[in-house]
Amino acid sequence: MKESGPIRVPKGLAGVSVADTKISKSASDGALVYRGYPIAEIASNATFEETAYLILHGRLPKSGELESFSGDLNSNSKVDDGVFRVMAELGSKAHPIDVIRTAVSSLGSIDSKQGVPAQETSIESKMSVLAANCQRVPRGEAPRLPREGLKFSDNLLQMLTSKKASEFDRWVFERVLIFYLEHDMNASSFTVRVVASTLADPYAAASAGLASLKGPLHGGANEAAMEMFLEVSDPDRAAEYLELAFKQGRKVMGFGHRVYKQFDPRARLCKEYLAEMIKRRGEDDRLFRLSDRMERYMWEKKKIPPNLDYYAAPIFYSLGIDVPLYTPIFAASRVFGWMAHYNEQVEDNKLIRPDSVYVGPSGLKYTPLDKR
Amino acid sequence: MKESGPIRVPKGLAGVSVADTKISKSASDGALVYRGYPIAEIASNATFEETAYLILHGRLPKSGELESFSGDLNSNSKVDDGVFRVMAELGSKAHPIDVIRTAVSSLGSIDSKQGVPAQETSIESKMSVLAANCQRVPRGEAPRLPREGLKFSDNLLQMLTSKKASEFDRWVFERVLIFYLEHDMNASSFTVRVVASTLADPYAAASAGLASLKGPLHGGANEAAMEMFLEVSDPDRAAEYLELAFKQGRKVMGFGHRVYKQFDPRARLCKEYLAEMIKRRGEDDRLFRLSDRMERYMWEKKKIPPNLDYYAAPIFYSLGIDVPLYTPIFAASRVFGWMAHYNEQVEDNKLIRPDSVYVGPSGLKYTPLDKR
Repeated sequence: MKESGPIRVPKGLAGVSVADTKISKSASDGALVYRGYPIAEIASNATFEETAYLILHGRLPKSGELESFSGDLNSNSKVDDGVFRVMAELGSKAHPIDVIRTAVSSLGSIDSKQGVPAQETSIESKMSVLAANCQRVPRGEAPRLPREGLKFSDNLLQMLTSKKASEFDRWVFERVLIFYLEHDMNASSFTVRVVASTLADPYAAASAGLASLKGPLHGGANEAAMEMFLEVSDPDRAAEYLELAFKQGRKVMGFGHRVYKQFDPRARLCKEYLAEMIKRRGEDDRLFRLSDRMERYMWEKKKIPPNLDYYAAPIFYSLGIDVPLYTPIFAASRVFGWMAHYNEQVEDNKLIRPDSVYVGPSGLKYTPLDKR
Repeated sequence: MKESGPIRVPKGLAGVSVADTKISKSASDGALVYRGYPIAEIASNATFEETAYLILHGRLPKSGELESFSGDLNSNSKVDDGVFRVMAELGSKAHPIDVIRTAVSSLGSIDSKQGVPAQETSIESKMSVLAANCQRVPRGEAPRLPREGLKFSDNLLQMLTSKKASEFDRWVFERVLIFYLEHDMNASSFTVRVVASTLADPYAAASAGLASLKGPLHGGANEAAMEMFLEVSDPDRAAEYLELAFKQGRKVMGFGHRVYKQFDPRARLCKEYLAEMIKRRGEDDRLFRLSDRMERYMWEKKKIPPNLDYYAAPIFYSLGIDVPLYTPIFAASRVFGWMAHYNEQVEDNKLIRPDSVYVGPSGLKYTPLDKR
């Protein structure tokens, strides 16, 4: 039988469609839609729960559906002590994303939920508890737990920080969560789909999504951006810092995106929110001036726009959230998108099993050990 | 900026090359090479350690290299009690692959190894201990540990079963491990590469590989094949069982492969080994006759050849290994292939971030909750 040879595509599958999707779409000109709604339309109007429902079910919920969805998220958020014990075994030096990955993986055995929909709701509900406690519990501190009757974003925020947040601050935090919720065929969602295509359960798929979030090319960018802001500190040092980075060929964190070449619409909105947050508080606006200055310099010199992580970072910082929790927050929100991709993959499934081009030697003969 | 639209490729990335590889190659005509060596050449001559070294390093080891590689595998096989405690938390009903995934994930925090090569060796060495104990430890039984001075396959076998194996049986077990070691761009190795492309560490990548092995379309086939043999039991019932499966449109386990359409060379060799094993023992050959009969009937009626899992199953069974440990054994061997793919991906990396075609609605306007 003659081999016709595999189909060759660009490296990293860049620009290669691996699925037809109805979930979301980003485009290089800065357009982003969630199930047909432009992101600005959602950001101006929707709650996190409405957006999560939209991404999962393909349409905005009716009143009763929203109530029941929110109720399910709340009632499924109790994390078994066994999962906390697993997290505690990992030790105080454990990386937050490793902790959440191991916790979600353990949930696949400890959780008693049967069937994909119940398992998905369970994971979605518990991820924010795991995210908020991924540093505390391995350090031996008592977990911070969700409170009855709070909305999703308020609940996550109160677990993340004991700082009291204003209504506007809480609204902004919810917007950032909405932006992190879903982003078409990003590396972790694709990982989730690859695993889903084997018909593995949602725990396995979510564990794999978290595994890919460990990599600095996908997760960790919001934390790295914040560390950069803290390092530069003074807006007057923005140009100097960037020039040195260019000279040394270092990647500047929070800039650039595989899709957005003009601007990231989520970053634009976050920038507005950050400005307004600081204005309303009447606080020192140095962090805003710094990020703004670096953005302008970067665009002037390299024509690279900032991405969501770049402006999410100073928002989280202003909210008093510990830097190592930024990527866990991303995960607590993105898990809803992962589950939407899981469902879409499984609904019309074919095992994702690509091919490769063999470029090594052939026809070699084994030589005994003493003849090598 | 105009969108030129993504490149469309066959579903499941079937026949789409996602990488140039020097690791291994399977072809539809039944040819399989490991780093240039035909699989039969390796099967007839090499040890597991030699093959693992070959797959990882691209050439057969010299005497000193082999000694040091084998020594490293042995000296890194001690699993921290913290990992066993994590496994014990998962409970006696936990699925073996879930247990190994969570254990490897926890190793990412508990293991103190620094740097990719040391981390890979650690995972490779410990996976067989985790595989052998993925049922015992969650049940509260003491772990079975590796013994100093035993070769890799003998060590794994003595942890898996207390049954005494003859020299020939042990040789056959080692062959099956060699066959499971690597198989080009299979679903779990691709998952590992996707995660590696984010520059996540080997623990994260191996966890994700295990996540994909949870799915019945990738892992579990050797167990399912064995359950089928146990169910059919009588060779004279082979045709009847298959006819019923055809009629009901049920997939027959252990048959068919995305790549091999004529025959799976590993299955052919395993069949020979199984026949010889049974002959040497002078035992009842019913299991061989049953698998042979089903294979012939399946080929006659459907022209679908059996795959490795189909003949690995009765070999494992004859060795006295518990059926739920068959896929864990696969994982304990395949992890070497995963690490080779991890290395090859990272050596010339580009983030695997595909695209999708959006086929949903667009331009929708948010309607308030009370208007829906």
